[in-house]
Amino acid sequence: MPPNRRAKRRPLEIIHTAEWMRLASREASVAARVVGLIPTMGALHDGHFSLIRAARGQCSPVVVSIFVNPLQFGANEDFGKYPLTMEKDRTALESLGVDYLFAPESSEMYPPGFRTSIHVEGLSERLEGRSRPGHFQGVATVVLKLMEIVQPNFCYFGRKDAQQIRIVRQMVRDLDIASEVVDCPIVREPDGLAMSSRNEYLNNDERVAATGLHRSLKRARENISHGERNPGQLLGEIREILEREPLLRVDYAEIVDVHTLEPVVKLRGECLILLAVFSGRTRLIDNALITESGRSFVVTI
Amino acid sequence: MPPNRRAKRRPLEIIHTAEWMRLASREASVAARVVGLIPTMGALHDGHFSLIRAARGQCSPVVVSIFVNPLQFGANEDFGKYPLTMEKDRTALESLGVDYLFAPESSEMYPPGFRTSIHVEGLSERLEGRSRPGHFQGVATVVLKLMEIVQPNFCYFGRKDAQQIRIVRQMVRDLDIASEVVDCPIVREPDGLAMSSRNEYLNNDERVAATGLHRSLKRARENISHGERNPGQLLGEIREILEREPLLRVDYAEIVDVHTLEPVVKLRGECLILLAVFSGRTRLIDNALITESGRSFVVTI
Repeated sequence: MPPNRRAKRRPLEIIHTAEWMRLASREASVAARVVGLIPTMGALHDGHFSLIRAARGQCSPVVVSIFVNPLQFGANEDFGKYPLTMEKDRTALESLGVDYLFAPESSEMYPPGFRTSIHVEGLSERLEGRSRPGHFQGVATVVLKLMEIVQPNFCYFGRKDAQQIRIVRQMVRDLDIASEVVDCPIVREPDGLAMSSRNEYLNNDERVAATGLHRSLKRARENISHGERNPGQLLGEIREILEREPLLRVDYAEIVDVHTLEPVVKLRGECLILLAVFSGRTRLIDNALITESGRSFVVTI
Repeated sequence: MPPNRRAKRRPLEIIHTAEWMRLASREASVAARVVGLIPTMGALHDGHFSLIRAARGQCSPVVVSIFVNPLQFGANEDFGKYPLTMEKDRTALESLGVDYLFAPESSEMYPPGFRTSIHVEGLSERLEGRSRPGHFQGVATVVLKLMEIVQPNFCYFGRKDAQQIRIVRQMVRDLDIASEVVDCPIVREPDGLAMSSRNEYLNNDERVAATGLHRSLKRARENISHGERNPGQLLGEIREILEREPLLRVDYAEIVDVHTLEPVVKLRGECLILLAVFSGRTRLIDNALITESGRSFVVTI
């Protein structure tokens, strides 16, 4: 963007209603501008900021939504205590040059009588979906709503939520939604822990133990580079590293096909190592992408 | 539309792919034109034509889709024999001045791996939904897809499918879809039978018997105008008329609240008399809208 355009950039505008947001997006669309959306639940961290920077490179205006979506939380989950840091988030969005912050109330998104849901069959039931029944129905429904309201040309997601990206992409394709899903690399703390708003829940010991997820993925990468191709062997060592930490409890550790999300018996094409691990009472997820490349495999953590 | 515009009107364009259809709609939208969509399964009749005329009055371009949607048929239903009259339909659309006919193949709408569905809970399970499990999930899914592809400002439906309109409206509201649902009056044959592509299935005797639906609704209107307010009484007489015809078999006959689609114990606000009746092996539906107006009720058949 040329400097004079940037100088004239309007300050962050905060929007609370779907109607107003839609009008702002439509105005941009009529002016043939490229709209980018980053859907978030707030408590923004460097992971989110990397999505915003990616969007800034491709889009103007950039819209960030902050909405803690009740539909994607289970009854016994952390909806009630999910971190809210709206003032801090807003300052960050301002300094990143975001154009619109869409921050609807729950009653704006789910008015009385709301009763529609979206289901991506066969991808939503396993892994996160098994541990969190209804989670992906809530995710798919809110993402579609946000896409309808913002009408983004590009919509940005972090690869940490690998299953979520797979499901959102499938929904966008199946429902002919005119938005392109862009996935961005996982952003990590210096010691390797994947950025997550839920990391705030961790006490010191749990925080140290939580680095086990990244360490176990690195070990898998090493083993693959040394020729290991057997998912059972790879997962065995992953579990060993995780189980060495008394504060960690493995919810699942699987190696699955990127497309079907079904376990593989042999590394092939594109696979994901998917981890969900409790550190104390906080549930963390992480993953690594394994890509076949000639006779070897590239592992992206 | 001024005569010279009409003279310059481009001939009907037939489109088979979602991508091409989307481009045509986007072009219209960029030119600030108002896009109207009439979703159909073909076998067009005067009911459809009335929707097209309504759209012609409000929109340009007018898009008619013809797609016999497999998702909305049950396993034992008439998907395989649903009437296909594409050439006749096309000629009719040309003479009505329709701009685009969107006629996708099934593989275009549901490519291999398709797995997303939309569910409008609480409105989809009763009445038609009970007799035709999965029907409204199929309807909601295809209507959303068509809306995403065509991006219509207005989308037209006939009131004969009263439950369908209620469900589509709810979906559009819940998912923030930027289209307005327009409902148009039922169009009837001279003897009162509601127009339907399925009327073609009727033999002569069944065709005569089928007028019982309209006659029973007229009787209800008479009874209401004479002060009857008890749904049980009204339905009793409706059933009596229907059961007098040996070829008819009632699937359901209910008086429900327009908003909840739940049975009412007393006429109030806006209610619907909903009928589903087999004539021979052909299932027909019809309805009447009862609207409270001061101390009396207006019945629209």
